[in-house]
Amino acid sequence: MRVLVALGGNAMTAADGSATPAAQIAAVTTAARHIATLVTAGHDVVLTHGNGPQVGNLLVKNEIAASVVPPVPLDWCGAQTQGTIGFILLNALDRALTAAGSDRRPAAIVTRTLVDRDDPGFTRPTKPVGRYLPADEAQTLIAHGQTWEDRGERGWRRVVASPEPLEVLDAPVVRALLDAGMIVVANGGGGIPVVREPDGSLRGVEAVIDKDLGAVVLAEAVGAETLVIATDVENAVVGWGTAQARPLGEVGVGELRELAGQGHFASGSMGPKVEAACRFVEASGHRSVITSLERIADALDGNAGTVVRPD
Amino acid sequence: MRVLVALGGNAMTAADGSATPAAQIAAVTTAARHIATLVTAGHDVVLTHGNGPQVGNLLVKNEIAASVVPPVPLDWCGAQTQGTIGFILLNALDRALTAAGSDRRPAAIVTRTLVDRDDPGFTRPTKPVGRYLPADEAQTLIAHGQTWEDRGERGWRRVVASPEPLEVLDAPVVRALLDAGMIVVANGGGGIPVVREPDGSLRGVEAVIDKDLGAVVLAEAVGAETLVIATDVENAVVGWGTAQARPLGEVGVGELRELAGQGHFASGSMGPKVEAACRFVEASGHRSVITSLERIADALDGNAGTVVRPD
Repeated sequence: MRVLVALGGNAMTAADGSATPAAQIAAVTTAARHIATLVTAGHDVVLTHGNGPQVGNLLVKNEIAASVVPPVPLDWCGAQTQGTIGFILLNALDRALTAAGSDRRPAAIVTRTLVDRDDPGFTRPTKPVGRYLPADEAQTLIAHGQTWEDRGERGWRRVVASPEPLEVLDAPVVRALLDAGMIVVANGGGGIPVVREPDGSLRGVEAVIDKDLGAVVLAEAVGAETLVIATDVENAVVGWGTAQARPLGEVGVGELRELAGQGHFASGSMGPKVEAACRFVEASGHRSVITSLERIADALDGNAGTVVRPD
Repeated sequence: MRVLVALGGNAMTAADGSATPAAQIAAVTTAARHIATLVTAGHDVVLTHGNGPQVGNLLVKNEIAASVVPPVPLDWCGAQTQGTIGFILLNALDRALTAAGSDRRPAAIVTRTLVDRDDPGFTRPTKPVGRYLPADEAQTLIAHGQTWEDRGERGWRRVVASPEPLEVLDAPVVRALLDAGMIVVANGGGGIPVVREPDGSLRGVEAVIDKDLGAVVLAEAVGAETLVIATDVENAVVGWGTAQARPLGEVGVGELRELAGQGHFASGSMGPKVEAACRFVEASGHRSVITSLERIADALDGNAGTVVRPD
């Protein structure tokens, strides 16, 4: 079965959120072992991943060093993380696949995702990125064209557009590598956002694409039969934090949409994952799975996780 | 014909050496037009590129921001540049190929190059990277395990290993994409250097691989029939700077080796390019070309450049 696995931040950083190089390498080494299990179970795997903490670090470097070294735009920071996370995933996957007795090999590509120049996100940016700064430093960056918001006690924070992903432009590369039998790392951070100019040329834009929504577009483009959203919990939970809390097992997409409409899933965490899972099931007629890295193999066998099926 | 083109720094930065994002985009836009000409002439093209100024900038950001954000090692900087340069080359190639009437599409991959853990470069590092610093700041970094050298008036500079590239580990990815008809960007900066540990695992190392020597290894691995080393001059020149200066046209590899032995080519610039050209011709029995970006198409037709042929 062709499976697209979207790795959450916890597969990339330490449990305390640390994103030092050593912490990232340790985290992806664990993730790669779970992915290798899927491969030896016979699945063709495409991997995508988040990059929030990594991009945050790059933005801070840009700011601090701006008077000495030309800063690079946010889309370049995304490209940088595709390079570094792709690199350490390649090493970890090579090792894990060999250890699991598989002769399948990994590939990691630079991936762009097309967004609409007129996406409303560009006029009303909402996605916070990078660190908090005092008001005066934020004002300097606002003068350079960035949008910063007063977030109260912690200070000001930059907000950027989070446009809808329309097309993964490099999906044909992923397909070619899958056809060649490779385990493909692609579309990290939801893809590097680009817009198409009126003259047809492509231009990077300063925005952040939701990596799970980007994964949906890629999963459809490569004909994935399951989209797995790997996170830090085994199941999506209804009534989370209440006495009626219950983990969701198998659920029809219509019922899940209804639960989402009732506000069961937090907008900053499980909400976008549920939205992505629903979109994929509706568009493809295949299943989505939301579960922890440790339970993906069981979830694909129907024995764990929140499994979203067509109605 | 399958051609590997190694783009020099001048294809990536402005004529004054500026490596701002805008300067890099402008430079690769020009480079992509020349590459598209090769594609429409019927060649299958693999592109590799240097990354010196870009890595230099990243090292400076690392240093300046080190007290706030964890610095990343040199191999990660290389990975970052494969991301950003790959990204802007993809956009530029997409545009140039469409404009040239080609339906071939580009792909950019993260590429690792294996080096020997016992390469003498690791005990006697020689390759300068990053900026000059005053002695006291260099001493702080020396205390952190780096090697810095006193370079006289301009200050101290970090030196790292420049080990021999042994194998481009991700060459099978390049082959798969070539077989799928794509124009492939790979092995930027000579590849991200990794060593194989005694337990078989791969680990990134802080080193810089000569991008032209890396290109030789990749060219052989993908069965390239010509290695093109694109630089800022049309020909390698014998007796450069003397009254007897003459540009080299077609030359046998034995004669070129002899000229190199006589010291005709500067060790920091044309020397490594001549060495790379000779190695490829000796190993493959095919031709190498050293010429400017503008003359590659003519050089492939035998009408320009320094063309190195087997004896």
